[in-house]
Amino acid sequence: MIDFMFHMPTKVIFGSGKLKELANPANVPGKKAFIVISSGGSMIRHSYLTFVQNMLNHNGVESVVYNKIQENPILDHVTEGAALARQHECDFVIGLGGGSSIDSAKSIALMATNEGNYWDYMQSGTGGRKTPANPALPIVAIPTTAGTGTEADPWTVITNSETNEKIGWGNDSTYPTISFVDPWFTLTVPPKVTAFTGMDAFFHSVETYLSVQRQPTSDLLSQQAVQLINTFLPEIVKEGQNIEARTMVSWASTAAGVCQSLSSCMSLHSMEHALSAYYPQIPHGAGLIMLSRAYFKHLTPHMPERMVDLAYFMDVDVDSLPEDRRPYAFVDALDKLINNIGMGELSLTTYGVKKEDCVKLAKNAMETMDVLFACTPVKMSEEEVAAIFEESF
Amino acid sequence: MIDFMFHMPTKVIFGSGKLKELANPANVPGKKAFIVISSGGSMIRHSYLTFVQNMLNHNGVESVVYNKIQENPILDHVTEGAALARQHECDFVIGLGGGSSIDSAKSIALMATNEGNYWDYMQSGTGGRKTPANPALPIVAIPTTAGTGTEADPWTVITNSETNEKIGWGNDSTYPTISFVDPWFTLTVPPKVTAFTGMDAFFHSVETYLSVQRQPTSDLLSQQAVQLINTFLPEIVKEGQNIEARTMVSWASTAAGVCQSLSSCMSLHSMEHALSAYYPQIPHGAGLIMLSRAYFKHLTPHMPERMVDLAYFMDVDVDSLPEDRRPYAFVDALDKLINNIGMGELSLTTYGVKKEDCVKLAKNAMETMDVLFACTPVKMSEEEVAAIFEESF
Ligand SMILES: [Fe+2]
Ligand SMILES: [Fe+2]
Repeated sequence: MIDFMFHMPTKVIFGSGKLKELANPANVPGKKAFIVISSGGSMIRHSYLTFVQNMLNHNGVESVVYNKIQENPILDHVTEGAALARQHECDFVIGLGGGSSIDSAKSIALMATNEGNYWDYMQSGTGGRKTPANPALPIVAIPTTAGTGTEADPWTVITNSETNEKIGWGNDSTYPTISFVDPWFTLTVPPKVTAFTGMDAFFHSVETYLSVQRQPTSDLLSQQAVQLINTFLPEIVKEGQNIEARTMVSWASTAAGVCQSLSSCMSLHSMEHALSAYYPQIPHGAGLIMLSRAYFKHLTPHMPERMVDLAYFMDVDVDSLPEDRRPYAFVDALDKLINNIGMGELSLTTYGVKKEDCVKLAKNAMETMDVLFACTPVKMSEEEVAAIFEESF
Repeated sequence: MIDFMFHMPTKVIFGSGKLKELANPANVPGKKAFIVISSGGSMIRHSYLTFVQNMLNHNGVESVVYNKIQENPILDHVTEGAALARQHECDFVIGLGGGSSIDSAKSIALMATNEGNYWDYMQSGTGGRKTPANPALPIVAIPTTAGTGTEADPWTVITNSETNEKIGWGNDSTYPTISFVDPWFTLTVPPKVTAFTGMDAFFHSVETYLSVQRQPTSDLLSQQAVQLINTFLPEIVKEGQNIEARTMVSWASTAAGVCQSLSSCMSLHSMEHALSAYYPQIPHGAGLIMLSRAYFKHLTPHMPERMVDLAYFMDVDVDSLPEDRRPYAFVDALDKLINNIGMGELSLTTYGVKKEDCVKLAKNAMETMDVLFACTPVKMSEEEVAAIFEESF
């Protein structure tokens, strides 16, 4: 019997050239924007920031730019950003760039209207487990990579560098009010980042398809996203200027974001959060790739039917396989995809992870992101989680 | 290249027994409800009204009941309802019952906060084409039939009895804030109403699948809704107590509502609006059924691929047919479905429609609901529309 909540209130404007719609006053939820971008400089180098500011000027909207966000966004920048947004009396927040800029924008939007420290509101680990008194400022998401799906979900993932905790959080007010998903802005993403972010979207689709939180609409969108990424991600890693293929992966990424609103990720994401909390040089997508084969091999015997479904979505000729091999066809197809995007050699060794950290990482994953373990249909022990880390070297 | 807007902000709580969640304060957007129900008395007879009021009492929410809504809801009741809602200082509106009660609730919610006459805001026919100054009061939708999908879209369809116009309207504020889709409350719907409302949902799915407004997510949900209704509607017409099958049709109906938010209906709905504006004794679903075969036969040669898709969704063994018959397989499957739900004999003659009205009906359809003609991928002349009415006797 089906039983679920369907909720994804963000207005998503999708299509190449659609960021122009930011010049339409109906699409701008305020008069003064706090624009959050990364420290890397690509938003300035590619003139994306200027483009956004020009569109805002059309509507007489002023803006203040905050350009300190790192690959794995940190608590200190949320605190500083929120103080600046208050000081400049900004009435909405724009996240422009990859998932780290958009997630930071969400957390800044929350702290611009609420007292105390952001960590007071985290619901696990050393978080204070408080409930915010006020809704966040309105949030506008403008992704320039295809991966996190944060433009279509309420989640924001921030690292507390002092405690080595990377925790996801969200409420109804951290759904972006409006998101512009314009694949044209992903054309400049280099191959490696394309591969990592695309695989992030891939794992969102797979995990939301397997999660205990799944529902009919997430099943349909997960399936479509898995199919599209499997087909088009290798193409855009090889040929970044292919706008048709970029568009397919952008949609897959947003669709997988919707799935994170309707369903949920699983413990693979908890494990990756632990990994990049301790090793912030590891891109989120890379962490997921490295852990994924051991992780899904572990899950396969516990949910063989859904794994066979996934193999079908990956275009495997499942029926030609011996029956007992069919559930494992997904892990094989995943391995093939990872090779197709040139990441076959990647392992925890690549990033200098220490083997003796496996138990610590397992503990951290289960403490800081316990909620995603609860969404995983298979109960996992600390030993099993540590063993998956160990298998990923 | 894909290019679309994805927006359906309503929080939908779906599942048998889920209406109990109305007792959760987080799910109630106010302190005094204006509850809109039909004049038929079934909400009182089945104690559904009492149930809703009890759940509200849990949250200390008072309510005022307005019980005059007819099968085809009319402007006069919107005007009267809105005046009463203001007078009693209600701060939100609940539509409890079929689509007519929920649509009336939406229009009352709009007029409780805006000046003038509801018809001033209609955008076609004799409507005043004004833009409302204020958002509607928050709306809660509690469907007790499975059909209109109005719980998951912003649309409300009201008839102006003086001018014989039945016009659909909606804006961002007429999406329900929250909808409770509890299939348990559809168990008491009699077979004929089950058939008519279920077919309304069926045509929403088919029309949104063919519409020029379609997008990836509506394509997926339309497909699922067509499949579910084709399989389970005949079952619940025969055996109304089958809660599993009722649940499938309830979900199909809500999914088709989401499709009406993401995509749009087509001119079949315009034509039915004209029909029941002049003949208000015709239930909306019956009107659609009677016009549908001639309508889709007319469209088939213009969009053969999409019609073949629909035949596949209806479980037709399309590949075994000669190639030139394949696009027409959908109309044949539709005819079979109409027979399976016991409506094979229904025609415009059944309801005493006059043959000489066909041109008048065509004119009315094209004037009052021109926007849905624009969403139809095939341009239709007045003669062609009149001919479809004529073929439906
Ligand atoms: Fe992720
Ligand atoms: Fe309808």
